[in-house]
Amino acid sequence: MEVSALSEAIVSGDRRALSRAITLVESTRTDHRARAAELLQALAGRGGDALRIGLTGTPGVGKSTFTDSFGTMLVAGGHSVAVLAVDPSSSVSGGSILGDKTRMPRLARAPGTFIRPSPARAELGGVARRTRDAIALCEAAGYDVILVETVGVGQSETMVAGMTDIFLLLIAPAGGDELQGVKRGIMEIADMIVVNKTDGELEPAALRTRADYAGALRLMRRRPQDPPGFPKAVTVSALNETGLREAWDDITALADWRRNKGILAARRQEQARAWFRHEVEQGLLATLRDDPAVAATMNELETAVAQGALSPEAAAARIVEKFKPAAS
Amino acid sequence: MEVSALSEAIVSGDRRALSRAITLVESTRTDHRARAAELLQALAGRGGDALRIGLTGTPGVGKSTFTDSFGTMLVAGGHSVAVLAVDPSSSVSGGSILGDKTRMPRLARAPGTFIRPSPARAELGGVARRTRDAIALCEAAGYDVILVETVGVGQSETMVAGMTDIFLLLIAPAGGDELQGVKRGIMEIADMIVVNKTDGELEPAALRTRADYAGALRLMRRRPQDPPGFPKAVTVSALNETGLREAWDDITALADWRRNKGILAARRQEQARAWFRHEVEQGLLATLRDDPAVAATMNELETAVAQGALSPEAAAARIVEKFKPAAS
Repeated sequence: MEVSALSEAIVSGDRRALSRAITLVESTRTDHRARAAELLQALAGRGGDALRIGLTGTPGVGKSTFTDSFGTMLVAGGHSVAVLAVDPSSSVSGGSILGDKTRMPRLARAPGTFIRPSPARAELGGVARRTRDAIALCEAAGYDVILVETVGVGQSETMVAGMTDIFLLLIAPAGGDELQGVKRGIMEIADMIVVNKTDGELEPAALRTRADYAGALRLMRRRPQDPPGFPKAVTVSALNETGLREAWDDITALADWRRNKGILAARRQEQARAWFRHEVEQGLLATLRDDPAVAATMNELETAVAQGALSPEAAAARIVEKFKPAAS
Repeated sequence: MEVSALSEAIVSGDRRALSRAITLVESTRTDHRARAAELLQALAGRGGDALRIGLTGTPGVGKSTFTDSFGTMLVAGGHSVAVLAVDPSSSVSGGSILGDKTRMPRLARAPGTFIRPSPARAELGGVARRTRDAIALCEAAGYDVILVETVGVGQSETMVAGMTDIFLLLIAPAGGDELQGVKRGIMEIADMIVVNKTDGELEPAALRTRADYAGALRLMRRRPQDPPGFPKAVTVSALNETGLREAWDDITALADWRRNKGILAARRQEQARAWFRHEVEQGLLATLRDDPAVAATMNELETAVAQGALSPEAAAARIVEKFKPAAS
């Protein structure tokens, strides 16, 4: 399909076109990359009103059930929801742990919903690019809530926080009264801590866990991007569908406050700038590998360097001078 | 001075010329960088028989006294010794904490010795480049033992280990019988742990500390680059000058074994290759900042990206395509 036709189909809400476009941006083939860039440019600036929500939590906290219940509630309230999964570990397991539609049976059947599993066999850098692109595509397709969920392997939470407006940490009730082994860095980037499984026998533990986290959050330094009362800790039961409405009210209150203060727009601008700089650096380094003539020269020079015939600096200069930018 | 004259003066053993050359490689001025590259190329391959020894230890373990005593012993034994200091923290303090000649009074007076303090106001990347270059210059000048010492701020131990043949961790006797707070990563890159201050009242504690570390080292996985018995823990007293001869015998035994197995040469080749690849990457990224036309275009595109007029990928592609390499 031509890029212009694909672009129109996406904007008209064609879910199969959106799927194909995400497959295109996931590809590492050079011709696919070029078409993907063209497509993203054609769609640039569209759908900027969607709210981008990041969600992390270790396995077992009930991320799938939460996303299923929460997303279904949003769709019932008139929203259109896209769920994107980020799982760098799937490059090892080869499978798509997250985002599998069978994990979210109700949401998968809801009209106006788009669920996309994590791609297999992608590196973290590739996952970041793919996810940013997929967010842009989902927004162009008209989805107004984009949920980006990650299991939190390695740096993936930081990565997801760097491409969303609001970041949620989902946790399960703790056994004792101590804070669970949540990495400190995650506490610092979370806008809300959501204690799931506030139901049945676990309810008292959930309430205690929420109080513990609320206390810990109060001890943290106030961030300029937060209204009074945030970051906050709340309780929900994805199973019984309790607390979800209140959590959504908190999220929208936070988003509205940030939007009115210009914080949301400033954050997105900085995210876009950082992405641009990252893409330039990665693009230059990719040229070193992907240009056959450069790669061959690199190998020759590397051998000369290893043999001591050429200093590493002089050898590097020979490569770098090939890259003198063309005049604009 | 012309590069060819400077090069000859260095090879002839002129210490002032060596000093000037190191000042040249420390400079970030573009014309200085070009002359430095020319000089390093002119000297490439010279002095490859020197032994490069890395030395780290936290403040207070007696690094200066150890280097003074150890270096003086080597010089008395017919060696010529160069001491280079790596202290990334001096970029904050603005001073040269390490390598100050007054710290090593005897070694500074010994003939055939060269001591160079850490440069002030350098970033870690700059320190790495400068130190590698300074090692090459000292080797070209004929020094046969190059001691590279670092206080171990941030990643500086790993950096120094990546440019030396043998890496020593200097520690002080521990108060109790527990291992001191030595980072695990350092244990894994150390070839020898040297317990200093094995003298006077501290001697029993030093012996116990050595035994503790020896036990810890035995529990570590055997590395292919080690003969039986290495990595090992030894005791010395830099103050009383005991154990220094034995430590040097251990170092030379290890170096000889690695040399005979081809491990030393293979390690240096891999270090040179890694340095080359790093220089190429840094050189390309530097062009982004240093070329006025590119920097101006970067700024324009960044603004367009922040405003949503251009996708980060499309904007990045416009920069990257300027860098299409010239045909060889």
